[in-house]
Amino acid sequence: MSLTRKLCSLGSHRVLEPAGALPQGARKLDATPVAHANEILCDVEALNIDSASFRQIVEASGGDPSAVAAHVLALVEDRGKHHNPVTGSGGMFIGRVRAVGEQLAERAGVKAGDRIASLVSLTLTPLRIDAIERIDMATGRIWIRGTAVLFETGLYATLPDDLPDDVALAVLDVAGAPAQVKRLVHAGQTVAVLGADGKSGMLACAQARERAGAAGRVVGFGPDRSTAAAQLLVEHGYVDAFVECDARDVLCVLGKLPEVLPELADVTINCVNVPGTELASILLTKDHGIVYFFSMSTSFTAAALGAEGVGKDVTMIVGNGYAKGHAATALQTLRDHPPLRRYFIERFGAAAIATAPPVVPVS
Amino acid sequence: MSLTRKLCSLGSHRVLEPAGALPQGARKLDATPVAHANEILCDVEALNIDSASFRQIVEASGGDPSAVAAHVLALVEDRGKHHNPVTGSGGMFIGRVRAVGEQLAERAGVKAGDRIASLVSLTLTPLRIDAIERIDMATGRIWIRGTAVLFETGLYATLPDDLPDDVALAVLDVAGAPAQVKRLVHAGQTVAVLGADGKSGMLACAQARERAGAAGRVVGFGPDRSTAAAQLLVEHGYVDAFVECDARDVLCVLGKLPEVLPELADVTINCVNVPGTELASILLTKDHGIVYFFSMSTSFTAAALGAEGVGKDVTMIVGNGYAKGHAATALQTLRDHPPLRRYFIERFGAAAIATAPPVVPVS
Repeated sequence: MSLTRKLCSLGSHRVLEPAGALPQGARKLDATPVAHANEILCDVEALNIDSASFRQIVEASGGDPSAVAAHVLALVEDRGKHHNPVTGSGGMFIGRVRAVGEQLAERAGVKAGDRIASLVSLTLTPLRIDAIERIDMATGRIWIRGTAVLFETGLYATLPDDLPDDVALAVLDVAGAPAQVKRLVHAGQTVAVLGADGKSGMLACAQARERAGAAGRVVGFGPDRSTAAAQLLVEHGYVDAFVECDARDVLCVLGKLPEVLPELADVTINCVNVPGTELASILLTKDHGIVYFFSMSTSFTAAALGAEGVGKDVTMIVGNGYAKGHAATALQTLRDHPPLRRYFIERFGAAAIATAPPVVPVS
Repeated sequence: MSLTRKLCSLGSHRVLEPAGALPQGARKLDATPVAHANEILCDVEALNIDSASFRQIVEASGGDPSAVAAHVLALVEDRGKHHNPVTGSGGMFIGRVRAVGEQLAERAGVKAGDRIASLVSLTLTPLRIDAIERIDMATGRIWIRGTAVLFETGLYATLPDDLPDDVALAVLDVAGAPAQVKRLVHAGQTVAVLGADGKSGMLACAQARERAGAAGRVVGFGPDRSTAAAQLLVEHGYVDAFVECDARDVLCVLGKLPEVLPELADVTINCVNVPGTELASILLTKDHGIVYFFSMSTSFTAAALGAEGVGKDVTMIVGNGYAKGHAATALQTLRDHPPLRRYFIERFGAAAIATAPPVVPVS
């Protein structure tokens, strides 16, 4: 990178190609491990790959961890970032600040040595991987040795003291979901959550329950009602009902509605990590209701044309990974709900990860 | 199609593959020209191909009208609908009702012989093309001989008496845009319209001007300020400023903001028909503002990750082609604004089309 290139708050000075692009739209970034005046350089410990992206990579690699590692290495080497060209998505990282650029020293709120989690997507984060150490095939976490760069507009959170790092990272990765649900849902409303037993879905259910209150109704949807997560949601009353249905199967979902959701939903939250669930989300929702698509597998045209095609006057919102205070809201959601907290620690905590069979050393 | 298959209000009985899909998600529909009990069969006169889809087909055909015709014929023959697999979008049709199924006779509001325009996407409409007669390479209108089927939940509008058919069709095709702008924009707000000089953009500007009022501010963006449409918007005060900028060039757009939009927009309407304009839309908008993506070229992940990547707390809405009363709102927008009406008649009216060079007979 030319030292004379003007530094940009959005990081365009790191774009290698095409000219004039910003980091997220760029094909390739310069991931050179230095902190320019308006950057923060971090030593990365682990990547939390976006669920849709990881699923695609695992499938493309035939489920073999070594092939997944090779795939990720090649991808990051090629693009200077983990930006999956198939899914368009990335993930986030956890690491330690190595250096803060001189322009940010006063206002970055972090100093060298602090442990942070990035809250911006890996699709725009200059990333260099020196080695991949371990992969958790169940959660999409990859432990690496390497470096990443945060820009002036980039978001990050100092890791909290009262939660294991792994758990905090799992929560921060989907921090937008509970924060948006908190804004959207009001007392007494009926809320449908698709993919309710996933990470973002569970946090969304907990927030929906809080906001909708006892007079409201929360209905979760997922492909398997026997999972620990689904059972937790039912047992602790985070959902009033859990419907076992593949959300891609619109006719199945429609068939269940008379029994579980005859009034349809005021707000539908889509947290599913497979494509093809837009229409079910729309049909679940009342006219003038809201469909909030948090899933990165959402197709814009399938949503837009799906609603038009069935003559449904609903407001469809693109899940914004950022909302003011979203990291605090997401972490607080976990603290406020001990059953969720226990589940997340068991599922995503370091101890669980260290002993679970799907964690595969690849270095 | 088996006569014993159960008729579905959403049209799933017309799906040939895959099993269990609904028409929009289906790879292939049965376009047999009969009206089942809950269907309306129409003789199609013309297709209005979605702008993103037509652009892709023209590019793939090297700009040759005969190749475009062959491309469309093959596509519709293959899928039983005009559902462009590259863009995911379709368009709409104009035609005459041939038969109304017995279950709809009382409530369809139309009878055999009525001239209507479909308000649902061609991506879910069973379509059979017997011959392509003419193509307007400038507007994406294709005159055909063929048939289409509307389902029980399908939307359509009887063509109005006071506007030429071609003009009504052009307006109805983008009817969602002015209807949504009418809902979203409030007095005194600042509104940015990207792709302001296109069909949906002009109607959006007119509605934004009406709603924002004299105390508000409407700024249009487009690649060429010398077009008739751009000049009309400026001359008649539909926009306070027209900014010449390619919306894909984020750094260019950002460079113009201090001069034309220092306060940023409360509401940004994206009506651009090329990919890659999500980030500019987001950066134009205030925190807690609204970005309304009407463009079918919008990438869901580019929008979601783009906002997160720049730490922008905006509400991003997927343009729903349907809103209650949208056809009436869109047509009324044209009636209420004589300069727009004149422009649309000149640009999309039958006389203009009959004499303009880009209309190419291909039969």
